[in-house]
Amino acid sequence: MERITASYYIETPFDPEDAAKVLAGEQSSGTFVSVPGETEELKERFAAKVESVELLETVAQPAIPGATDRGRGFQRANVKVSWSIENTGYNIPVLISTLQGNLYEITQFTGLRLMDIQLPASFGKHYKGPAFGVNGCRELTSVTDRPLIGTIIKPSIGLTPEDTASLAGTLATAGIDFIKDDELLSSSANSPFESRVDAIMNVINRHADKTGKKVMYAFNITGEIDEMLRRYEKIVNAGGTCAMLSVNSIGYPGVKKICDQRALAIHAHRNGWGMLTRHPLLGIEFKAYQQFWRLAGVDQLHVNGIQNKFWETDDSVVNSIKACQQQLFDHKTILPVVSSGQWGGQAFETWRRTQTTDLLYMAGGGIMAHPMGPQAGVVALQQAWQAATDGLTLQQAATQYKEFAKAVEKFGTKN
Amino acid sequence: MERITASYYIETPFDPEDAAKVLAGEQSSGTFVSVPGETEELKERFAAKVESVELLETVAQPAIPGATDRGRGFQRANVKVSWSIENTGYNIPVLISTLQGNLYEITQFTGLRLMDIQLPASFGKHYKGPAFGVNGCRELTSVTDRPLIGTIIKPSIGLTPEDTASLAGTLATAGIDFIKDDELLSSSANSPFESRVDAIMNVINRHADKTGKKVMYAFNITGEIDEMLRRYEKIVNAGGTCAMLSVNSIGYPGVKKICDQRALAIHAHRNGWGMLTRHPLLGIEFKAYQQFWRLAGVDQLHVNGIQNKFWETDDSVVNSIKACQQQLFDHKTILPVVSSGQWGGQAFETWRRTQTTDLLYMAGGGIMAHPMGPQAGVVALQQAWQAATDGLTLQQAATQYKEFAKAVEKFGTKN
Repeated sequence: MERITASYYIETPFDPEDAAKVLAGEQSSGTFVSVPGETEELKERFAAKVESVELLETVAQPAIPGATDRGRGFQRANVKVSWSIENTGYNIPVLISTLQGNLYEITQFTGLRLMDIQLPASFGKHYKGPAFGVNGCRELTSVTDRPLIGTIIKPSIGLTPEDTASLAGTLATAGIDFIKDDELLSSSANSPFESRVDAIMNVINRHADKTGKKVMYAFNITGEIDEMLRRYEKIVNAGGTCAMLSVNSIGYPGVKKICDQRALAIHAHRNGWGMLTRHPLLGIEFKAYQQFWRLAGVDQLHVNGIQNKFWETDDSVVNSIKACQQQLFDHKTILPVVSSGQWGGQAFETWRRTQTTDLLYMAGGGIMAHPMGPQAGVVALQQAWQAATDGLTLQQAATQYKEFAKAVEKFGTKN
Repeated sequence: MERITASYYIETPFDPEDAAKVLAGEQSSGTFVSVPGETEELKERFAAKVESVELLETVAQPAIPGATDRGRGFQRANVKVSWSIENTGYNIPVLISTLQGNLYEITQFTGLRLMDIQLPASFGKHYKGPAFGVNGCRELTSVTDRPLIGTIIKPSIGLTPEDTASLAGTLATAGIDFIKDDELLSSSANSPFESRVDAIMNVINRHADKTGKKVMYAFNITGEIDEMLRRYEKIVNAGGTCAMLSVNSIGYPGVKKICDQRALAIHAHRNGWGMLTRHPLLGIEFKAYQQFWRLAGVDQLHVNGIQNKFWETDDSVVNSIKACQQQLFDHKTILPVVSSGQWGGQAFETWRRTQTTDLLYMAGGGIMAHPMGPQAGVVALQQAWQAATDGLTLQQAATQYKEFAKAVEKFGTKN
């Protein structure tokens, strides 16, 4: 029988072997006393198994405050636990309850983080994965051999549909590949969703008729189920190619329901992710997290960016990009969405460390606030990536390309 | 114009006033540089406002490791921020992205926790809240003047539908009010959902025909959207009165879609909650969290229990019960689900500290592993609550009631 394996990084004031057994018990047959009906045969078939416990360092203070030292300090360990596929079948929400449910409540742990998941082969058949993936998004935007260059409409909230459409027109003319709503905007008082789609798609369709290139616009349809379906349909009818979902605010079943329509590329925004991952001994690692969304069928997933404006380290960002690049069953791979404080200067380090151009490379202020205007902002990003993949340094690129040089002048001082 | 206010508990190595402004900027108009189109009028209408900053203690080590001390230590503060209802309208997922989105990523914070939310009055009209609430659940189970007594089927996973139905019959005969599936079980290899509903409802309906009392059974329908709707319908058709949802594994839109059917009481399980709340300077406080689920329309929500087997303190549990008791608009109030390591001994302290019997009081092993069998387990819990509300102590109750005395013998040593 196939098994699902999860890897945890834990910390405990108890014996780690015992703590791992409590986890396995709690997340399968578990209760705090033996009960009638709990036979050995039943345990064998449905009980979670501790596959391995690898002891790590011991620390004096618990990662999560409040626990009592039991005279042995707080020991860290890598723990692997497995479950039979017979427990949950193909039910991701119940699998989430199994792998990330009550185990975070267990007294035995002063820190617990889900690091990775190995799903059995039959999941690859049951779930279709992304409808478009990297190649599908490239086809929709007519972009080959370089990252898709994208931007976020800023200010995040407050522009009218006409303002936004006008900006989209400028960006389209400048050669942008992708534009998105901010995650804070879905339907605001002065930018109702339907009017925004009409205004923007009018501009994008006209540009596509003229040039043969259709800019991908990710309209933020995040909302209730029926509302999301209606808005999805609206985008399809208007000739759009992409919908954006704030996946943490929606949850797996809602995201899956939308992805299942398979007519639009799905841009998955991971806002709220910091809460789930920022403490090193709590929550989830991206490597585990991204698998659920790929099974749901998203085509693009946020990974933050090198030298970003947020808390995340470059190492963590690089690992996330690599996780997206990894094959998951025979499903299409997805586009990592590189964003946050990006302006082109980071293209060199991003290329050096990932050696891929299968990225959606986003800049907000980096494009919109370029000294020579948004058009030059787009050009500067394309130049940065051309230079990076040609093996130039940032300084060499600034000598060679005028628009990029201006970007370095304005944004380069911090880096 | 109505405003939505959120209270945060923060920690920062910077000036807290400045950090709060970064939060407000990031979560409304925000980008890292000024951009064309960001007028003063637009800012006034859509910008989030810092309403107050109350300085608290300064600590030497950051709550979340990794930040650099900037020579002033790490200052904690209570911060209130407000947003116009014009930003999001009645869209809870986008509101979640606004109140709990990228702000957890901000470098300025070495700790950030959403403590409470004040939603404007019009939310109370737009959302209907619970279809049943406390009184509706009491009517469905014919229970007045005491907590509903419930149990979880254990072992969590592995019993056949026939085993489970037989157990349900025993418990019904013993006078139980409520039974639930474990959150790890929805449809397992040896307990397919439909067969389980048929077998159990057959027993429960027969018992109801005979006695006039219908035991409420919370079938775990957690899954994908269409699957949940099908399973909901199955319960309705079989004469059931309740469906269970693992709300964190499903997310708001999925939960709302199910609650909107308004034919079954909704039992909301919060497994995964530890991940969101266990660190005191990260995630969400229950007081804020529960409001979203009440707006979605759940009727019962888990709050852990006094002297529980998990990490949570009694104070935190009491605060959660009080949060559920508080009126939210003119909606029905919900039943706090008290569970985890409960056996009746905690009835006394629970009553002393909350002075309410509007509870769903759950015991798993505490009933099923009672030395005189599950029937005596139910009776012992009823006795405990009778004694507690009569003003008896645990010791007095043990003298007066035989079944409760046996429970004290078996489970009481730890407390």
